[in-house]
Amino acid sequence: MERIYDTIIIGAGPAGASAAIYASRARLSALWLDNRLIPGGQIADSGRVDNYPGLPGISGADMGEAFAEHAKKLGMEPVREEVKEIRVTGASAEGAPVAGRGPAKPLFLVTTSKGQYQAYTVIYAAGAAHRHLGIPGEEELSGAGVSYCATCDGAFYRDLETAVVGGGNTACEDALFLSRVCSKVYLIHRRDQLRADAVLQDLVKKCENIEILWNTVPDSVEGEEEGEVTGLAVRNVADGEIRTLPVPGIFIAAGMIPNTELVKDLVQTDDGGYIIADETGRTSCPGFFAAGDIRTKTLRQVVTAVSDGANAVNSVQTYLLI
Amino acid sequence: MERIYDTIIIGAGPAGASAAIYASRARLSALWLDNRLIPGGQIADSGRVDNYPGLPGISGADMGEAFAEHAKKLGMEPVREEVKEIRVTGASAEGAPVAGRGPAKPLFLVTTSKGQYQAYTVIYAAGAAHRHLGIPGEEELSGAGVSYCATCDGAFYRDLETAVVGGGNTACEDALFLSRVCSKVYLIHRRDQLRADAVLQDLVKKCENIEILWNTVPDSVEGEEEGEVTGLAVRNVADGEIRTLPVPGIFIAAGMIPNTELVKDLVQTDDGGYIIADETGRTSCPGFFAAGDIRTKTLRQVVTAVSDGANAVNSVQTYLLI
Repeated sequence: MERIYDTIIIGAGPAGASAAIYASRARLSALWLDNRLIPGGQIADSGRVDNYPGLPGISGADMGEAFAEHAKKLGMEPVREEVKEIRVTGASAEGAPVAGRGPAKPLFLVTTSKGQYQAYTVIYAAGAAHRHLGIPGEEELSGAGVSYCATCDGAFYRDLETAVVGGGNTACEDALFLSRVCSKVYLIHRRDQLRADAVLQDLVKKCENIEILWNTVPDSVEGEEEGEVTGLAVRNVADGEIRTLPVPGIFIAAGMIPNTELVKDLVQTDDGGYIIADETGRTSCPGFFAAGDIRTKTLRQVVTAVSDGANAVNSVQTYLLI
Repeated sequence: MERIYDTIIIGAGPAGASAAIYASRARLSALWLDNRLIPGGQIADSGRVDNYPGLPGISGADMGEAFAEHAKKLGMEPVREEVKEIRVTGASAEGAPVAGRGPAKPLFLVTTSKGQYQAYTVIYAAGAAHRHLGIPGEEELSGAGVSYCATCDGAFYRDLETAVVGGGNTACEDALFLSRVCSKVYLIHRRDQLRADAVLQDLVKKCENIEILWNTVPDSVEGEEEGEVTGLAVRNVADGEIRTLPVPGIFIAAGMIPNTELVKDLVQTDDGGYIIADETGRTSCPGFFAAGDIRTKTLRQVVTAVSDGANAVNSVQTYLLI
């Protein structure tokens, strides 16, 4: 426990991997923690990723693997321990002058399933999860026609019909996005009015190739076993009638849950639970930096996550200096 | 000229390529302009890039090519025309409802070496250039030991000696960064005191493996023909004495010049000439978005540029909607 790391990186998705790569190249002493067996975070579940420049059409699993391999080449591998607690201790310590460190800093104490570690800083890249519907077929066909991100996967359904489930801003934005890409978009909403901002509601209602199915809930995802989605069975809550929409693509916009349970008393979060931080990753807690889907941002994508990882390491370096 | 594009993307570096990829996948009608023959922007000049997750150790030229190929697969290729003027016209137009567009927008008129184009929005990703010293050997050995970015290339000189040229904040930060990676760092400065913030000056002076050469200017970069850097000849401005530092790596921190000459009357820029914009790319001019090195940001890297390209397209979509 005497060892003090420059930083502890938590999470091995794109943001964490990028932070590990940048930390290694900056020769920071860094510990990288992630309890999952498969690297890549959320992206590992994507069937195909076509919007990370330079790796067209790669599978999410291969992308996670490629990022982990890159980090490994630079000497960084995630340690498979589950983080149980993170707190700031009263202790502080000065860095060695050779490392170009400034005044003494408070120390972070990270407790895992197997031990305790100390560091001057934490880069928190624990990600977020899309809320699932919990209907039959959803998990089995996730990545094979069931998607939680229209920006990511909409382009795979060019000139085909798709369905969006939800009634908030994201659902409406997704439907409008897909209306340009797809021949037709069904918007499935359980109530008789949308929750989205009025301007978005108007655009959705005016859009020629969006059909809103009011008072309707998704019942089950239909598809071939170990194959692709063939349709979405929906149920009208008023009369109970069930029909199947013959769509190969289903976009679920039921919200996201950031993995901030562990740090909600340490840093400020917004109403949705995201850590409040701009692109530098700086949070309300000095020395604690947020990177990737877990922070407040407009666009949650692999490209924005890898940017965050690099920025967080840059912010760590500045923080250690001054 | 009747055609109105959703967006005109200017610049084919990482930010522009990412914007092209995202615009295509969002099925925006987009025109992509860049006059250079080789894709990749500044990164095309880098000998080796090791900090873009998933493509370890790739050459800058190959990276530029890979990004351009990716965009091409999605139907996007830069049109080789030089942009001469960008202005907002009095005209405005409404989009078709199927595209999910909101109220009428002012139009941008882009004049190039070959014609004129209209669009609802512009994504400006014209990049920035590092200021060069103009000494013998500098251009010939750029990318072969001469670098303008310690964050990018410092890790290639692990446990070796390097020299940093400059006396401002960037030079001091680079020297401190390199002090962790390299066995020794020479800081070459023409005056008898640094321009950097006092806290950085103190850290540099305290750092055991940084040696400041005061009143000293770089004279020439030495190296094998078509080979690698072998040293930096420096001259003491007080006594005229010349000595050669036997360093394989030279980092020039003489500032950057953002390519904003063309748009300085259109959008607000900061003292350094960078377009004032946060990660969303929004500028003082509605409909005009900045992406990549050209905007105000802390860290100029390929990862932050590709993030900007995606964010700019996302902002374009939101702008077109409301």
